[in-house]
Amino acid sequence: MPSDYVAPGQEYTRDTAYIESRITADGADGWRVEPDRYRLIVARACPWANRMLIVRRLLGLEDALSVGMCGPTHDERSWTFDLDPGGVDPVLGIERIQDAYFARVPDYPKGITVPAIVDIPSGAVVTNDFAQMSLDLSTEWRPFHREGAPDLLPAAQREEMDAVMRRVYTEVNNGVYRCGFAGSQAAYDDAYDRLWTALDWLEERLATRRFLMGDAITEADVRLFTTLARFDPVYHGHFKANRQRLTEMPALWGYARDLFQTPGFGDTIDFAQIKEHYYVVHEDVNPSGIVPKGPALDGWLEPHDREALSTGGSPFGDGTPPPPPRDAELVPQHATPLPGGVAPVR
Amino acid sequence: MPSDYVAPGQEYTRDTAYIESRITADGADGWRVEPDRYRLIVARACPWANRMLIVRRLLGLEDALSVGMCGPTHDERSWTFDLDPGGVDPVLGIERIQDAYFARVPDYPKGITVPAIVDIPSGAVVTNDFAQMSLDLSTEWRPFHREGAPDLLPAAQREEMDAVMRRVYTEVNNGVYRCGFAGSQAAYDDAYDRLWTALDWLEERLATRRFLMGDAITEADVRLFTTLARFDPVYHGHFKANRQRLTEMPALWGYARDLFQTPGFGDTIDFAQIKEHYYVVHEDVNPSGIVPKGPALDGWLEPHDREALSTGGSPFGDGTPPPPPRDAELVPQHATPLPGGVAPVR
Repeated sequence: MPSDYVAPGQEYTRDTAYIESRITADGADGWRVEPDRYRLIVARACPWANRMLIVRRLLGLEDALSVGMCGPTHDERSWTFDLDPGGVDPVLGIERIQDAYFARVPDYPKGITVPAIVDIPSGAVVTNDFAQMSLDLSTEWRPFHREGAPDLLPAAQREEMDAVMRRVYTEVNNGVYRCGFAGSQAAYDDAYDRLWTALDWLEERLATRRFLMGDAITEADVRLFTTLARFDPVYHGHFKANRQRLTEMPALWGYARDLFQTPGFGDTIDFAQIKEHYYVVHEDVNPSGIVPKGPALDGWLEPHDREALSTGGSPFGDGTPPPPPRDAELVPQHATPLPGGVAPVR
Repeated sequence: MPSDYVAPGQEYTRDTAYIESRITADGADGWRVEPDRYRLIVARACPWANRMLIVRRLLGLEDALSVGMCGPTHDERSWTFDLDPGGVDPVLGIERIQDAYFARVPDYPKGITVPAIVDIPSGAVVTNDFAQMSLDLSTEWRPFHREGAPDLLPAAQREEMDAVMRRVYTEVNNGVYRCGFAGSQAAYDDAYDRLWTALDWLEERLATRRFLMGDAITEADVRLFTTLARFDPVYHGHFKANRQRLTEMPALWGYARDLFQTPGFGDTIDFAQIKEHYYVVHEDVNPSGIVPKGPALDGWLEPHDREALSTGGSPFGDGTPPPPPRDAELVPQHATPLPGGVAPVR
């Protein structure tokens, strides 16, 4: 996502104008779902891109949709492939994801963001509409799901789930940015109150439900999890979202640990890249660029006892957990994954 | 204390050259202990000045040594009396404490710091040597102590106590500043490790002792307490001292609560001024000047159960607790002090 800082005195408002073409089964927008045709570009640091990594893992789309990973920091122009040999994405052959944006829209004037999906033959971005993109992995890409892929968008719960996801998005996913990028004390104070009102609601909701929608993991959990994983390392201090730490909210902290220890979630989290991204890129917030060594992260692997909240069934519903990540996609800190792909925390 | 930012790449080193004249019973330096002759200048925000407020309360020196309070923020030139009507200290008749420094040393070239003690007749600073100053309240000012004043410098423990205070000073009181003002990632990383090594030592020491030197409060506790009170509100996030919060270190947190709930300690703490000082004054660290609303502070009044560590006797040794603060010296947030002068936390 771009770091659109706010004008002094103003509230932070996210730029939500995206390239909205969709990759679909029927190819209505001109891009049909096909294996090996597209490349998902992410940065592990970015919470919006992190959603895509988790959903792709849960659904087993690794073979159908390859991934390119940008490094945790970027300059004003673009995210870069600085982690790749020679600083070039081996499939797209570019150093900066902005080149794929320009291939789609010359002089593209908006934020150069991840996640983005690039059409490999043309080298052009098809979409950077992160909200639609992960839903389409569940629906349009269904023929390429692994055996045992969970249903992340259960139809019977869809209406309630959309309402939950909407509130999580505006109040929490985006709410932490509204705290951190507030242009005045008053805007910050309002943002802080909005955020904690929502976190209190979630704490209450998760006190009686193992996951946001009940016994099984859904897309709503993916979306909340990526913010919770960043809460204590970044949002608490860097964004001043500091009424409590995540570790002080028993239901949310147990829930976050439960997900972290579930294959497909914790194994996508790179705490080192997450901290480096926020503390280095946001020079306006942290001019020194110094990255905190804390917080201690060993709590993420502690038992969570959340199974007791389940009324039965697997977190994957009728499906199964995904296998461990591919070697090429292991987070360096997780070089020795625990059984089931659970990531040790360094 | 001055905000001496460090050169890029360097470790933060505190300027420890002070005006070192002493006010003594024999007046050897030219300033004899006398009631109503001196004015103690502090800012509630400042941890070094906070020591003086606590020791003065514990020893009952309110009548002998009046206090002037600077506001929480200051500009490059000096702390100011912006909390007083008309912005003028009613006894010294000055707007800026630097005027009292200049009365002592024209064009005084060093940091204009609190605490300072001013000779009222001449309007000149006698001393800003904070380390010596609080010791002298215990020794040189003894004839003016209240009945029941505790012995904060017990002779039998003095040698061990000096060693403890030295380590607390270099590693903790100053260690948090070394983290926050580090000029490079390497300097910060070293500072962080030094700080947590010391906090682990204190956590262990306080697991078996009610106070640093045993059953009774000493000067060593005063010196550690003023840093602990600022730990979660400021040092954890603002100075990146964030391996854990104070609330996650059971012995230190119980110890800090025990002291906070003891008359003379918590009733000197103004969390609002503390946060405003650091987050507004350190523009290099927090350019937005926005002050966090968190953390939640209600835990400070929770039971601490530290009495169980005592082998007998009162925290005040042969002495007694001080009476509640004078009305004129109440922290605004503590407008309705609890029985015994314990401060409610807003």
